[in-house]
Amino acid sequence: MNDPKPGPPGGRAAPPEDAHGDVSVDRLALAEELTGAGVSGAGATASPEVAEYALRLGDDALILAQQLGMWIARAPELEEDVALGNIALDLIGHARSLLHYAGTASGRSEDDLAYWRDEPEWRNAWLFEQPNGDFAHTIARQLAASVYLFELYGALMESTDPTLAAIAAKAVKEVDYHRDHATQWVLRLAGGTEESRRRMAVALNDTWPYVDELFHDDELVARLSDAGTAVLPSSLRGPFQEIISAVLVEAELELPTGRTAFTASGGGREGRHTEHLGPLLAEMQVLARAHPGASW
Amino acid sequence: MNDPKPGPPGGRAAPPEDAHGDVSVDRLALAEELTGAGVSGAGATASPEVAEYALRLGDDALILAQQLGMWIARAPELEEDVALGNIALDLIGHARSLLHYAGTASGRSEDDLAYWRDEPEWRNAWLFEQPNGDFAHTIARQLAASVYLFELYGALMESTDPTLAAIAAKAVKEVDYHRDHATQWVLRLAGGTEESRRRMAVALNDTWPYVDELFHDDELVARLSDAGTAVLPSSLRGPFQEIISAVLVEAELELPTGRTAFTASGGGREGRHTEHLGPLLAEMQVLARAHPGASW
Repeated sequence: MNDPKPGPPGGRAAPPEDAHGDVSVDRLALAEELTGAGVSGAGATASPEVAEYALRLGDDALILAQQLGMWIARAPELEEDVALGNIALDLIGHARSLLHYAGTASGRSEDDLAYWRDEPEWRNAWLFEQPNGDFAHTIARQLAASVYLFELYGALMESTDPTLAAIAAKAVKEVDYHRDHATQWVLRLAGGTEESRRRMAVALNDTWPYVDELFHDDELVARLSDAGTAVLPSSLRGPFQEIISAVLVEAELELPTGRTAFTASGGGREGRHTEHLGPLLAEMQVLARAHPGASW
Repeated sequence: MNDPKPGPPGGRAAPPEDAHGDVSVDRLALAEELTGAGVSGAGATASPEVAEYALRLGDDALILAQQLGMWIARAPELEEDVALGNIALDLIGHARSLLHYAGTASGRSEDDLAYWRDEPEWRNAWLFEQPNGDFAHTIARQLAASVYLFELYGALMESTDPTLAAIAAKAVKEVDYHRDHATQWVLRLAGGTEESRRRMAVALNDTWPYVDELFHDDELVARLSDAGTAVLPSSLRGPFQEIISAVLVEAELELPTGRTAFTASGGGREGRHTEHLGPLLAEMQVLARAHPGASW
């Protein structure tokens, strides 16, 4: 391991130095480290509009994380289980920071927001709630998601909101790895067998209708980006397409255009969702709702 | 993050220093780091008996990892998703090292062993294949598993087999954290609400019949422990019970004894399994088997 970063993804606690020592570790330090509050912006309170924006970003990350978690020990290689598991944990980390910040506007915790909102209250884009499908579909979704998130967080680092800027600065390093991971898999599947190439092409075709929604502006983001707080989604379309094109050229694959290019209507930012979100939320929330309160 | 260790769990790749730099990272270094071979013992070849022993240990870790992975984004708290996800990734890391080493005896890779063995060829103990149940059941299984694994790896560090000793030395630090995690949750649930205490007691009651199998000796381990290679399972029973007793005293909980103490027959080390392993393997293996070969 040659990780130059001081810590691993997902807020992993350091094991005690003496492995045969006392059972206890410093749970207080651990708890602080693991709360969304610990990442950045502790103490800052979001305005209602900024909270709504943070909620969109946090929901995207959390929903994608849950989907990716399903791959643990089910990917085609053990190495890949580890990679997707780590990506999922990175995304939960981003979600926790964003939901924590979003919750400051209404006195709710990150767990309140994760486990106690019903479907129409979720603000994730449709792309993130699309099912894992076969491995190629997961990778196609990862390609779109990670390139988008990389551009988004890269721009959001310049936000006038110091909390959002700090969260973005941390997240961009991780989604850069996610982007590379997805790119390498697209190339590998496209350049593998006839079957793997066919599946990668089908997956891109199935996934791309959900990409357009990522770049929709609305009044909220227009106001926030005028104030320098948020990133205007439409501003990310160009850089996104540039990177995707480069990957597809190398993979010798094409996206559907013209009459074959279907675009999903979207609506996730207003709480309208596809049929996939409901079951996913049910799975995610059932335990917390069955036993409300931190003392379960 | 104050992790003094050089690297995160699960063989996570370091993101590139310049987050806005080139998409490519050093995939070769990444691949090397992520293979079981990279952990330790690269080049060493296991004898058939040592391979069988390593298989038992590796299967325990892999099956438990898959179960824990199901909790990602489904635990009662986001913090807990991250913790269980990280524990799962640690265990996959141990499994990869052990399966890699086991495979050297027969020219099989870790992926061959993970994805291409049928149920009777699996060597995990029954404890590890028992279902997640509610959160308390997962925690009861974690308590038994992590205390056992901590004692096992602690003793295996002294193995005359340098590969096993090296794997154990790495793993023991991680399972020490797992042990602390489980302990803290047992105390929290036992000292929480009436309902959480009741569930924790039920979970311990349901889990404990599967503990006995962990400490069964057979001819293989007897021979290997005579040679200083393996740890005699029965030698771990005393230290295991001592730690469990201390936890339960603090939690003011009791294990069933006497006529109410049921003991499952076991048989996992000989490939006899409960009804839970089949579906679990099906989920784990379906993708790899549908698209055999690294070139999927």
